[in-house]
Amino acid sequence: MHHFAEKASGRRNFLSLLLKTAGALLSVPGISLAVSNAHRYRDYTVQDIIDIVLEEIPGAPFKETVDTLKSGSAGQQVTGIVTTMFPTVSVIAETARRRANFIIAHEPTFYNHLDDPQWVANNQVVQQKQALLQRHGIAVWRFHDYWHTHRPDGIGYGVLKKAGWEQYYQPGERMLQMPPAALKDIVAHLQRSLGIAHVRVIGDPAQQCARIVLVPGAAGGKMQVSMVEQAHPDVLIVGEVHEWETAEYIRDARAMGAKTALVVLGHAVSEEPGMEWLVDWLQPKVPGLTVAHIPSGDPFTWH
Amino acid sequence: MHHFAEKASGRRNFLSLLLKTAGALLSVPGISLAVSNAHRYRDYTVQDIIDIVLEEIPGAPFKETVDTLKSGSAGQQVTGIVTTMFPTVSVIAETARRRANFIIAHEPTFYNHLDDPQWVANNQVVQQKQALLQRHGIAVWRFHDYWHTHRPDGIGYGVLKKAGWEQYYQPGERMLQMPPAALKDIVAHLQRSLGIAHVRVIGDPAQQCARIVLVPGAAGGKMQVSMVEQAHPDVLIVGEVHEWETAEYIRDARAMGAKTALVVLGHAVSEEPGMEWLVDWLQPKVPGLTVAHIPSGDPFTWH
Repeated sequence: MHHFAEKASGRRNFLSLLLKTAGALLSVPGISLAVSNAHRYRDYTVQDIIDIVLEEIPGAPFKETVDTLKSGSAGQQVTGIVTTMFPTVSVIAETARRRANFIIAHEPTFYNHLDDPQWVANNQVVQQKQALLQRHGIAVWRFHDYWHTHRPDGIGYGVLKKAGWEQYYQPGERMLQMPPAALKDIVAHLQRSLGIAHVRVIGDPAQQCARIVLVPGAAGGKMQVSMVEQAHPDVLIVGEVHEWETAEYIRDARAMGAKTALVVLGHAVSEEPGMEWLVDWLQPKVPGLTVAHIPSGDPFTWH
Repeated sequence: MHHFAEKASGRRNFLSLLLKTAGALLSVPGISLAVSNAHRYRDYTVQDIIDIVLEEIPGAPFKETVDTLKSGSAGQQVTGIVTTMFPTVSVIAETARRRANFIIAHEPTFYNHLDDPQWVANNQVVQQKQALLQRHGIAVWRFHDYWHTHRPDGIGYGVLKKAGWEQYYQPGERMLQMPPAALKDIVAHLQRSLGIAHVRVIGDPAQQCARIVLVPGAAGGKMQVSMVEQAHPDVLIVGEVHEWETAEYIRDARAMGAKTALVVLGHAVSEEPGMEWLVDWLQPKVPGLTVAHIPSGDPFTWH
């Protein structure tokens, strides 16, 4: 189900590129060389790509954000862009194999939200991964806060699109109003459409659900519980929970008569469609570069 | 597999009780009534039970701890004690049915670590649960920090005991040195012995494991990752992870050649045996009271 989106490769609109490239390069040194290569695609640096993206994000750039470069440099020339959830070692290896060198990842590179390499002191795995990225000359930029700030939320919309639920999206509304369906059918639909092998559920498989709150990723117990308290949906669908927070809250609420069910999809697989949609969103903005999605996938096997 | 441990019921050692009771009651008002009822078991308040427990905990009482009363009062007479992981609505109902009124729970009552009822403002489920506890006159005491401080760690030892692994426990050592076994056989043994229907694993099912670090519950990514960095066990067995921390760390480490596998048992079921063992530990200290374990169980169904 996860395919390498190569929609842009093969498209060569020489005329528009020629104009854009010439315009961009006339103002920089090395112009004679640049013009002689004007039939080539424009060269983008990592910073160029970031700037192109941020133009579309309300309020960007943010003063405080985790969306920083985790490896590589802003000035390096981009040979190809890969989008993914987690820039895993496998994703890095596949990126290098494709001769791409810029990974846009939704989640951390070094196993903690701030990507502090000293979160665990002298972490050998962090050091090995830094060396691997450097060996391949790969830049990694986190695209978390900004993508969630895009309207519509890039992750949320990507998931809705992949699930075939875009028509239920109302701008500014968290709640999806859908034709009633049994919880078990909603779960089966999500597993099939998003390609998720296993999920965890709290709820009656037969209960009818029409009012759905979908919050991929790990939004935290306080936000998840608040949304249920405010909206009382028939089902809350999330990526990851703290079991002692949201899961126990839902279990108790149901035991005292509340209806809200909980579906836990898994963190990586719950948000991956948002990074897949990023390809469609970004590709037209960077003609000549290939933007591809490599899913990082569910880290677990289930027994 | 989860049975109601009623080991104490039916044991009536009148003579020793008579002596103890008389001794305790001679110093308090109402002595004539007390002595006339000296054939009854000693009456314990909630505070009496807490004091009896804390006598065995190094450094207790702690200045800062989450182990506080979540409902009821220190002065109320105890009619029976229930131990559990999460004091769920079901556990509360079963406690009331048994006419017990003191729940000793390892984890929060109100869905956040500090049991702040205003963690989510005006939380209706919290208010309903408070009313339920009050209606049944049930006191809930959290027994988390203290039980982990007991030597051996009450949770860890209870799990080892139930898994039949006590012989591998070395005081002061986190690492269990065991006869080598395939990861898949270790997983199957844990599922069978601890009664866990489903687990999530990262690792090669066939890999041999002899050096095991077992950390039930949700110790947090920093601690979990630190333990792997320090000890490089063949397998780390935990209750709950942040997927973006420990799970991704293990996935990457393995992709770069490290051996450590990860088994995620689920939070409640991973620590429940420690609250079951609390029955054996506490019952002899409170003669005449029934101490029983009611498992809170896995909140999820798995699909």
